[in-house]
Amino acid sequence: MGIKHYTIFIPASLTAESKDLKIKTYKVGLIGRTAAIFNVDKIVVYNDDADPREAKFISDILNYMDTPQYLRKKVFPIKKELKHVGILPPLRSPHHPTEMPVQGDYRQGLTLKRTKKGTVVDIGADKLALCKEKLSVNKILSFKITKLAKEIIIEPDKPEVYWGYDTIVSNKNLYDSIRATKPDVVVSTSRFGEPITSILNEVEHKLKKAKHLAILFGGPYSGLHDILQGQKIVDIDVNTVPKQGTKTVRTEEAVLATLSVFNLILNAE
Amino acid sequence: MGIKHYTIFIPASLTAESKDLKIKTYKVGLIGRTAAIFNVDKIVVYNDDADPREAKFISDILNYMDTPQYLRKKVFPIKKELKHVGILPPLRSPHHPTEMPVQGDYRQGLTLKRTKKGTVVDIGADKLALCKEKLSVNKILSFKITKLAKEIIIEPDKPEVYWGYDTIVSNKNLYDSIRATKPDVVVSTSRFGEPITSILNEVEHKLKKAKHLAILFGGPYSGLHDILQGQKIVDIDVNTVPKQGTKTVRTEEAVLATLSVFNLILNAE
Repeated sequence: MGIKHYTIFIPASLTAESKDLKIKTYKVGLIGRTAAIFNVDKIVVYNDDADPREAKFISDILNYMDTPQYLRKKVFPIKKELKHVGILPPLRSPHHPTEMPVQGDYRQGLTLKRTKKGTVVDIGADKLALCKEKLSVNKILSFKITKLAKEIIIEPDKPEVYWGYDTIVSNKNLYDSIRATKPDVVVSTSRFGEPITSILNEVEHKLKKAKHLAILFGGPYSGLHDILQGQKIVDIDVNTVPKQGTKTVRTEEAVLATLSVFNLILNAE
Repeated sequence: MGIKHYTIFIPASLTAESKDLKIKTYKVGLIGRTAAIFNVDKIVVYNDDADPREAKFISDILNYMDTPQYLRKKVFPIKKELKHVGILPPLRSPHHPTEMPVQGDYRQGLTLKRTKKGTVVDIGADKLALCKEKLSVNKILSFKITKLAKEIIIEPDKPEVYWGYDTIVSNKNLYDSIRATKPDVVVSTSRFGEPITSILNEVEHKLKKAKHLAILFGGPYSGLHDILQGQKIVDIDVNTVPKQGTKTVRTEEAVLATLSVFNLILNAE
């Protein structure tokens, strides 16, 4: 399959049910881990009328997880919502290196300041690196290390391997958030969708030419059929957990179960 | 497919990595939820040299989750390991009814005492029920309500729907635990197994005649290849998360991802 861009849509109400900050943190952690395991590029937190602080919290935690360990303290101010980030499992993805950099490595870095020579960047090495381009400061960007000697010289670049996800908080409802994202194929997941076992061939066929796949998830208070209310934007409406033994499947569970099934489809031989 | 019995094997070390009791509780909760979503009949906690208290904790939490709400206080003494059970999501499976029983319903009940007439059973109704058979007391068993009037009369019976899982703590290592369970087909899940996308037809074929499927999971400290050390008991060695974007997939994530893929295979049309 030729999917180049993989987006998932998560409701801001994801964490609204639980009052326990530690459990909320862990629950968002599951979403972040799932996204990284299955090579998701973008997570859109859509507005389903939850308290806007929920969306902010979800995106803070997701961004924290996606940020390499060596930049976290520099990027995330201490605040009480991030009190329990210590329990988050690490992503252990290629953009979170645990060893000192060598020449040719790719690294995410924080742009610190512009000088006459270019931009000074913190890439978590024993000294700051220099990029000869003028970049906007205080951003995390991706670089390749072209020289590592007395000076570290880097240039903006990304490797071919999975390189983490971006998180977007959308103030729009789901329908408008999807329109703004412009995916080729939109999959909605619902207990009321067609069982994946019945439409497997159809799903494979529809994904064949897709470049940008989006998968939507409902929330703890309402499923996607309620949220979209018949608005025509969905290409495939699927139940990815046919014959479920429980009355409901929670959002964080549905995301893992669904992306696992789509991983099989997207990598079919 | 004709699978009648579905068992998963979980290492006692599942929760050993985390020192936070609340997170440990939630993590086991994910396993219990996953088992119920995918209609697992039995969870075997095998001995992989973790502290035996871990296995006891895991089985306590799993049993707690599987026990109908109306029996929990009667069956589980207050103890500090169960301090955080309040954060566990309910299974919402058919054996956890939320309404008052009517005639013809199936219910799990706790056998309280034997009388001349039979056995007195607590089925969570407004009065105790009578089963005319002599049953051993202090056990949770399944019943059908044959009469519900001034007296509630029940008889031992189970419905056709998913009716929860049993949890077994095995003191044996994985190999001996599998031998004691006698499954037809044993599936080991490992990053080093064949990608599911390459052997999908073979897996489907091997499961066709199976009655008792067992799926094995490794732990946070060692994968199944290390644990089994070449012992010949596995029929299918599969990587259910091909192309993973993270270095490792955690046990609780692997269980959900794997059972989701097998749900697709087991219910294929």
